[in-house]
Amino acid sequence: MVENSDPNSRILGILAGGGPFPGQVAAAAQAAGRPVFIVAFEDFAEPAVIGPYPHEYARVGAAGRILALLREHRVQDLVLVGPVRRPSLLDLRPDYEGTKILARIGRAAFSGDDGLLAAIVRVLAEEGFRVLGAHDIVVDALGPRGALGKLAPDPQAMADIARGIDIIRAMGRADVGQACIVQQGIALAVEAIEGTDQMLARAGALARPGPGGVLVKMAKPEQDRRADLPAIGPRTLTAAAAAKLRGVAFEAGGTLLTDRAACIAAADASGLFLYGFDPDVAATTKGATP
Amino acid sequence: MVENSDPNSRILGILAGGGPFPGQVAAAAQAAGRPVFIVAFEDFAEPAVIGPYPHEYARVGAAGRILALLREHRVQDLVLVGPVRRPSLLDLRPDYEGTKILARIGRAAFSGDDGLLAAIVRVLAEEGFRVLGAHDIVVDALGPRGALGKLAPDPQAMADIARGIDIIRAMGRADVGQACIVQQGIALAVEAIEGTDQMLARAGALARPGPGGVLVKMAKPEQDRRADLPAIGPRTLTAAAAAKLRGVAFEAGGTLLTDRAACIAAADASGLFLYGFDPDVAATTKGATP
Repeated sequence: MVENSDPNSRILGILAGGGPFPGQVAAAAQAAGRPVFIVAFEDFAEPAVIGPYPHEYARVGAAGRILALLREHRVQDLVLVGPVRRPSLLDLRPDYEGTKILARIGRAAFSGDDGLLAAIVRVLAEEGFRVLGAHDIVVDALGPRGALGKLAPDPQAMADIARGIDIIRAMGRADVGQACIVQQGIALAVEAIEGTDQMLARAGALARPGPGGVLVKMAKPEQDRRADLPAIGPRTLTAAAAAKLRGVAFEAGGTLLTDRAACIAAADASGLFLYGFDPDVAATTKGATP
Repeated sequence: MVENSDPNSRILGILAGGGPFPGQVAAAAQAAGRPVFIVAFEDFAEPAVIGPYPHEYARVGAAGRILALLREHRVQDLVLVGPVRRPSLLDLRPDYEGTKILARIGRAAFSGDDGLLAAIVRVLAEEGFRVLGAHDIVVDALGPRGALGKLAPDPQAMADIARGIDIIRAMGRADVGQACIVQQGIALAVEAIEGTDQMLARAGALARPGPGGVLVKMAKPEQDRRADLPAIGPRTLTAAAAAKLRGVAFEAGGTLLTDRAACIAAADASGLFLYGFDPDVAATTKGATP
């Protein structure tokens, strides 16, 4: 690999999963004068999103092909963006290089839902790549603290947020989930592998009378911040409104807001709050609830 | 209240939620020569199930009416059977007595999903009732250890069961859930307020190729065993088969099997295992997995 003197003019490799965020990362890098090359994960990356940028498709398990593509395009810096549903070992159908890497990371990577992504980041670093977080590329990618739109959570909503933080922390210890929905202290729904959209889709039918619930999203305590941070987009807000929620709360500095302005506009249009919490501060508000 | 000399000839009060189990408890008590009186929770108890037995309907929040009914029918021993979706405070619409009881148990009862049931058991005890578990009435109500049907879990399934136990324990610390679905180490679904049937209904679409997943059910660590034990019925097995699972595993001695023979028959007919685990033993098998 040839070291380039200015790291910010080096080509940026993007391993792209689903959703709009890989395109936003690519656009931000190009806007900063940095060329990009995308390896798009088959079945996950959206063609309309990555189409405008130089790219090749690869299966998640085709590690040999992925590494070859990255080297061929002289990629040194890498970012992993966009959700990839964790495959089963069988789904993975690793190529020759992939099989060697699997042996290296071991089956331990399959014991939890994050194990695999963390292992991939480790392997890429060992292969000589510098793995960055999406927030290293996109300015303001991480949601800030406080109420972003016109509305703010009331004490009942703050209590629900505090309970959501407790739940995600507890689940995080078992390496499950980054989101839940809480209404009046009741855990309406807890996210496993189905994703936030599907969880929101079932929450409407579970809603109780009275003040609506809150979607709470935060990274797992041990999570590598370079892989699979929780993300919120305008669609999340629309779906939350359809599920009769009163707002969306996220871990400030630990959640990607894909298109912040559109998120705020969607929240205001739907009458929802969009609130960035510091987990340690928010959790302490619990006792203060009437 | 008049004490009766033989506790086993005293009338048995049944606070009945949904499903077939209240009827089975009533039948078991009557078969043992014990009269029963059912207070059926409106919107939860199934008329076809409780119809054959002396009963009255009451709202969950109508504590005054419930206590009056129990005293009027000279009930001293009580059992709570069948799921009741935890109501919100607003849903509850407590009567005068219910409001006083709510003030007594405090809003703390609404902080978790079990808090309310545990508080109800405590209040009933304070009101002079002896609160029993359903397993005190129905012989063999609690599922035993080991494989109950023709099939037994293989090492992969045992590893999934161990992971399921980890997940339920972690969630239990946040007072959420008694069930989850694990396939090849992946948490496909985690149960919150929606119940096992709805969780199973979404799991089929989330299944991965390769060996199917396992439904794991167990009581929360701190749970009062007289209220809302996890339950498995023949319908659970049928739904698990439809979700492409390979089996259902439950905490031996801590899970109600409603109609054990029918459960075993359904498991065998669907090619599923039905397996009672000791959480402490099963959790240790994790490291032994290939």
